[in-house]
Amino acid sequence: MALSIENPKPEAEAGLNDLVALVADGMARVNTTILSRTGSDVAMIPEVANHLIASGGKRLRPILTLACAKLCGYAGEGDVKLAASVEFMHTATLLHDDVVDESDMRRGRVAARIKWGNEASVLVGDFLLGQAFRMMVEVGSLRALDILSAAATVIAEGEVMQLTNAKNLETDEAAYLAVIRGKTAELFAAACEVGPVLAGRPEAEHAAARAYGMNLGIAFQLIDDVLDYGGTSAELGKNVGDDFREGKITLPIVLAYRRASEGERGFWRRTLQQGEIGEDDLGTALDLLQRHGALEETVARAHHYGAQARAALDIFPDGPVKTALNGAVDFCVARAR
Amino acid sequence: MALSIENPKPEAEAGLNDLVALVADGMARVNTTILSRTGSDVAMIPEVANHLIASGGKRLRPILTLACAKLCGYAGEGDVKLAASVEFMHTATLLHDDVVDESDMRRGRVAARIKWGNEASVLVGDFLLGQAFRMMVEVGSLRALDILSAAATVIAEGEVMQLTNAKNLETDEAAYLAVIRGKTAELFAAACEVGPVLAGRPEAEHAAARAYGMNLGIAFQLIDDVLDYGGTSAELGKNVGDDFREGKITLPIVLAYRRASEGERGFWRRTLQQGEIGEDDLGTALDLLQRHGALEETVARAHHYGAQARAALDIFPDGPVKTALNGAVDFCVARAR
Repeated sequence: MALSIENPKPEAEAGLNDLVALVADGMARVNTTILSRTGSDVAMIPEVANHLIASGGKRLRPILTLACAKLCGYAGEGDVKLAASVEFMHTATLLHDDVVDESDMRRGRVAARIKWGNEASVLVGDFLLGQAFRMMVEVGSLRALDILSAAATVIAEGEVMQLTNAKNLETDEAAYLAVIRGKTAELFAAACEVGPVLAGRPEAEHAAARAYGMNLGIAFQLIDDVLDYGGTSAELGKNVGDDFREGKITLPIVLAYRRASEGERGFWRRTLQQGEIGEDDLGTALDLLQRHGALEETVARAHHYGAQARAALDIFPDGPVKTALNGAVDFCVARAR
Repeated sequence: MALSIENPKPEAEAGLNDLVALVADGMARVNTTILSRTGSDVAMIPEVANHLIASGGKRLRPILTLACAKLCGYAGEGDVKLAASVEFMHTATLLHDDVVDESDMRRGRVAARIKWGNEASVLVGDFLLGQAFRMMVEVGSLRALDILSAAATVIAEGEVMQLTNAKNLETDEAAYLAVIRGKTAELFAAACEVGPVLAGRPEAEHAAARAYGMNLGIAFQLIDDVLDYGGTSAELGKNVGDDFREGKITLPIVLAYRRASEGERGFWRRTLQQGEIGEDDLGTALDLLQRHGALEETVARAHHYGAQARAALDIFPDGPVKTALNGAVDFCVARAR
């Protein structure tokens, strides 16, 4: 069966369980912080924010912040606020993405923009971004502020790049990677890097945590892009084909297009470039992706970045947190089977 | 003739000239900073950002930051980056506002969202917000970061409040004031407050600069709302009636509706609440605003806040900067005549 990111296979989920258990206390405080910081006298703000925040999601990014702080022996409280900041930055991005993509659904619920309008999604996203920065300021680490504010600009750059590449079948693997580094992996990287920063650890550990997060984020997005076509089993499940309908040029498409016959290229141009999509076209797209091994190869790329993420952790001492962070890599790449 | 904010009467403009001259050197560096910080390898970002940034606007907010720093004897370079940050926050708000209001025009040019789409306006706004925070972090004042990040959330709250009040004729003066304090005056206040903060001046001066900016911002927005109906001369000029067509409940409307006959209330309900606006309706609206003195009274309110802005400056020593800041008050309120 095709898997949505919110319903991973049990064995994949298990990969994350150790990490979740290790930071459970901190995450309880993160969740309290998130709840209190969406509060506003303007009633629409918590309504819109909580519609999305309460709808689940694994909170992988704040978990990473807590775990990397713990990995570095951090004993203060700053990681909780930075983790909540990271989740707010992510939530703001989702709200704005829905407007950009004109999405109707998000995390299996109707998108906030459908329920409250594009206006509310834009403005509540801005509010959450502001609250994220306020919390960072409260923590008081200029270095962490620098990392996370830089991430905010890189995320926006990645999203604009994606916009520029949309419907452009000439997009190559390097251009695709630049997009996902920006729109997804940069926040994973920043979420991880602030752990050793808070703990006052040497630069080498900042860089290692950052590299772990960056590679994990790339692997995560690659698998997401595979899951959008139903995983490597390529069976049709719900939520399958959103990227196809939006003309997003993800790696499976890049690979399949490069290997396509002239007739197949015509199919991709009609559907992705010109947006003329008929009832049977998603099925045809899945056939073509299978024929050229595009989904399997994208998963193989994810394994490559996953291996780099694991290698980045080598400089940290062995222990339960490091083991659990490795488990998170397994979780991210195993979702697509 | 009715005046647009970009074409103030010569005598009103004169009120600002002294201030502009006093901070001209700093503003040249602010403009260089703005130009370099909109740079990105993603070509669409500087295109969209500069479309709006290069289209003029008086850069009143960054001027206020430089002037308040100068008023407090600040001799460093941090004010330039904070001033550029303030302008980026403002520009991001305008880009997002255009999406929220579905505006076609901005500063006499076609709005970025029309030229590049809503997506680009949302994302480039996010990019500029990120860059604003990066510059603040570079300046390194946690206090200034706190003030400006808090302002970011308050601005978003004000905008959401405005959204909530839209088309609601029961909005009263207090609710209207809460909206413009948030969406406009808070950034004026923060722009001013960071001056004495950078200069390391006592708390009383932070509060005074903040009060000056807050009251100036309220006066500025009140006059803007009057100008949207063509100023107190109530002649039809270009760009007149945007608020009317969008169903925005500004103070002139609040006042006229309170004083309206039952028949007049029906007119306001049909046009502003139900959005049924015919060709002659703007003319009728102007007649009603005149009949009830709603525009004159809004200008009177602006004078009241202008007086409070001037009074807030009392604790600072007399001198050319203080005189010029008082001149800025004259400029803001004189625009409506």
